[in-house]
Amino acid sequence: MEQKIYYLDNAATTKMFDDVLSEGVKYYKDEFYNPSSVYYKSVEVKRCLSEAKKTLLNCLGADDGEIIFTGSATEANNMVVFSQKNMKGKKFLFGAGEHPSVLECAKELLKRGYDVEFIPLSKEGSVDMESYKQMVSCGNVAFVSVQHTSNETGAVNPIAKLVKLARKFNKDVLFHSDGVQAFSKFGYSVLDLDVDYYTISAHKIYGAKGVGALYIKKGVKINPLIFGGGQESGLRSGTENVFGIMTFKMCAEKVIKDIEKNYNKVQNMRKELLDELTKNGIDYVIHGEGVPHTMNICLSKKVRGETLVHALEKQNIFVSTGSACSSTKNYNTTLEAMGVPAEEILSSIRISFSPYMDFDAKFIAKTICEQLKKLEVKSYE
Amino acid sequence: MEQKIYYLDNAATTKMFDDVLSEGVKYYKDEFYNPSSVYYKSVEVKRCLSEAKKTLLNCLGADDGEIIFTGSATEANNMVVFSQKNMKGKKFLFGAGEHPSVLECAKELLKRGYDVEFIPLSKEGSVDMESYKQMVSCGNVAFVSVQHTSNETGAVNPIAKLVKLARKFNKDVLFHSDGVQAFSKFGYSVLDLDVDYYTISAHKIYGAKGVGALYIKKGVKINPLIFGGGQESGLRSGTENVFGIMTFKMCAEKVIKDIEKNYNKVQNMRKELLDELTKNGIDYVIHGEGVPHTMNICLSKKVRGETLVHALEKQNIFVSTGSACSSTKNYNTTLEAMGVPAEEILSSIRISFSPYMDFDAKFIAKTICEQLKKLEVKSYE
Repeated sequence: MEQKIYYLDNAATTKMFDDVLSEGVKYYKDEFYNPSSVYYKSVEVKRCLSEAKKTLLNCLGADDGEIIFTGSATEANNMVVFSQKNMKGKKFLFGAGEHPSVLECAKELLKRGYDVEFIPLSKEGSVDMESYKQMVSCGNVAFVSVQHTSNETGAVNPIAKLVKLARKFNKDVLFHSDGVQAFSKFGYSVLDLDVDYYTISAHKIYGAKGVGALYIKKGVKINPLIFGGGQESGLRSGTENVFGIMTFKMCAEKVIKDIEKNYNKVQNMRKELLDELTKNGIDYVIHGEGVPHTMNICLSKKVRGETLVHALEKQNIFVSTGSACSSTKNYNTTLEAMGVPAEEILSSIRISFSPYMDFDAKFIAKTICEQLKKLEVKSYE
Repeated sequence: MEQKIYYLDNAATTKMFDDVLSEGVKYYKDEFYNPSSVYYKSVEVKRCLSEAKKTLLNCLGADDGEIIFTGSATEANNMVVFSQKNMKGKKFLFGAGEHPSVLECAKELLKRGYDVEFIPLSKEGSVDMESYKQMVSCGNVAFVSVQHTSNETGAVNPIAKLVKLARKFNKDVLFHSDGVQAFSKFGYSVLDLDVDYYTISAHKIYGAKGVGALYIKKGVKINPLIFGGGQESGLRSGTENVFGIMTFKMCAEKVIKDIEKNYNKVQNMRKELLDELTKNGIDYVIHGEGVPHTMNICLSKKVRGETLVHALEKQNIFVSTGSACSSTKNYNTTLEAMGVPAEEILSSIRISFSPYMDFDAKFIAKTICEQLKKLEVKSYE
C-alpha cells in the first residue's frame, strides 16, 4: 500500500481540483482555437474568456473595473509597479514583508533612482501602523503596495484602513495590494478595500500554474509591460492561456462558494495540530497573526528548519522553510523585519493548510515530535 | 453525423497532441509540486524542467547556451528588445514584417527616443538584402531583430547570412530572431544561424498556450523583464508553468523526429490544394515565398478576405485573413511592406497547413470555389 501524503505547503502551490482538470482539458481538445481569430469557434473561446473575467470580478466582490490576465501573479505585480514611471520623483511605499515579486521590483526602482521606502512590520507581521502613518503623511506618496495576506506568516494587513489613510494625504495616491494569499481564503470586496490594483493567482487556489490576474479599479489607468498583438485590451499581449484562465474561473467559483466552511475547517485543522503538538510536549512559538491557513512556527530552537523539512519529507509530510519563491535564498527576510531573533528564524518552518487535502493531526504531530527528538539528539552528538 | 472540420489556421495556434495532453496532465495530478520547494517531490519536478531545457536546446541544434521559459513567445520577444537599454543612442534594426510582439516593442523604443529603423521587405516577403546591406554598414548598428519565418506569408529570412553581414560591420552586434513560425517546420541549428537570441512558442507546435522559450547563446547577457522569486536563474521570475513546459518538450520531440516527413506532407497538401483550385478555374495570386506551411493567397479580387473567411467557417473550413494577433486590426502591414496593392491585401486570406490535421484538397477547393461564386454574384448585386 502506498503511504499517504500529507501536503502542508499549500502556500507554495495547490493541487488542481480533479473535476476542474477533467473539464478544463476541453480547451486543448475541441475548443483549442486561438481566441483572437475571427471565426465562430474562436469567438466562442473569446466569449468564455470574457465570462471568466466577469466571474473573477464577481468573486472579488466588484461589479465593475477590469480583469487583466497575465502569465503569473508575479507578472501582474511587475506590471503594476513598473507602470508608475511617470511618478518618478514622488515617493513609493512598499511593505517590508512583500512577496519577492513586489519586493524585487521595489529594489529595481531604487536602482533606477526612484524614491522608494519600505514600511516596517509589526511583530504580528502586518505593516506597523505608527510607521505607516508617519510615512504616508508626508503628502508626497504617489504609490503604495502592501500585500493583503503574508505568504510567510498569514498576517493580514488592514487594507481598507491603509488606503483611507493614504488618500487622506493624497487623494490621487495609487494603492496596490497583492492578494494572492488572501483570495478565496476569507470574504471581502475589492470595492470596500478601495484598492486601485489587486493581484490574484490561479495556482494558489487549485488552478493552473502560469496564470495570474490583475484587478484594476474602474477609471484607473495602467501601462502595458508586454507589447504585441493587443490582447487584453492592448494591456497584455500574447495568446491567452485559455486552459489556464478557464480552470482559474472554475476553481474560483468552487472555493468562493465554500469560503466560510473552508475557513472554519482550516481553523480547526490548525487548532487540532497545535493541540496535538502540545500534547506531544512541544513548546512552539508562532510568528505572525492572521489567517489560519499559513503558520510560521518554531518547534525547536535546536533543529534547523531546513533539516526538519527534509526529515519530514521522508515521512511524506511536506512543509517548507518559507516561501518557495525565496526558500532557495535560505533566509526569511519577513521574519527578520518582524524582529524574530536569528536563531528562531533559522529553526522555523512554514506549515500551510488546505481544506481539500488529506490531514491527520495526530499522525503529523507524532511524526514531527519523533523527528525532532532524533534531530535534537543528533545536534548534540 | 457531425461534419468534419478542416482547420487551416495552424499559424494562429495548433491543437495539442492527444497523447501529450494525456501524459501532461500528471503535472496537475501526482506531480503538481512547486519546482522551487526543497523537498524531493519538488526537486524531481525541477529536474524535469531542466530536462525540458536540454531537449529544447537539442531540438534547436545547440549543445550549449541557455533556455529561458516565459509566459509566451511575445514575452520572450519583449524581454530581448527591452533588455537592450544600455545601447540607447546606437541603432536598432527591425524587419518591417516582424510579428506585432516585436514590431510593437520597436515602436515603443521609438517613442522612448531610441534610434530605430525598419528594414524594408522584398516582394517575396523577406527583408530586402540591398537595403539591409546599406543599413547595417553604417557601423553603429547594435541590435537587429529579424524573424526566421513570416507568420503572414511563410517567407524565410536567410538569418545566417544576415548575422554574418551585421557582424562584419560590428562584431558586437546582438542579433535576435523570432523563430516561432520556423521551429520544427524545417531543420537548422541556432549555432549555424549564429544568433544571440532565438524565440520559440509551444502552442504553435501542438503544445500549450501560455508558454514561450528564449534561447540565449552561451556568453550572451540578457536582463530580466519580470523580477521576483528568482526562477529561471533570476532572469524570469514567477512559478514555472510545469504542465506547459513539459508538454512543450514532448511536442518538440515528436515534431522534430518527423520534421522531413512532415515538411514533405505539407508541401504536398499545398500543391494538391493549388492544383485543385486551378482545376476549379481559380486564378490565384500568392504573396511571399518560403515554407509551404503558411500561404497568403488572393483568390478573387472581387471578394474581401474577411467575407470569404466567414463564408468558409460556415462550411467548417477555418482559415484567416492574417495573423490572429493583428487580424482584429483589419489591415495586413506585412503585405503592405511587400508592395502588394491595397485591393489585393483586402481580398487575401491566409491558409496555414498542418501535417497532423484532417485535409481533403478536393473538398476544400470545391467549397472555396462555390463560396467565391456566391460572393462574387453578391458583390455585383
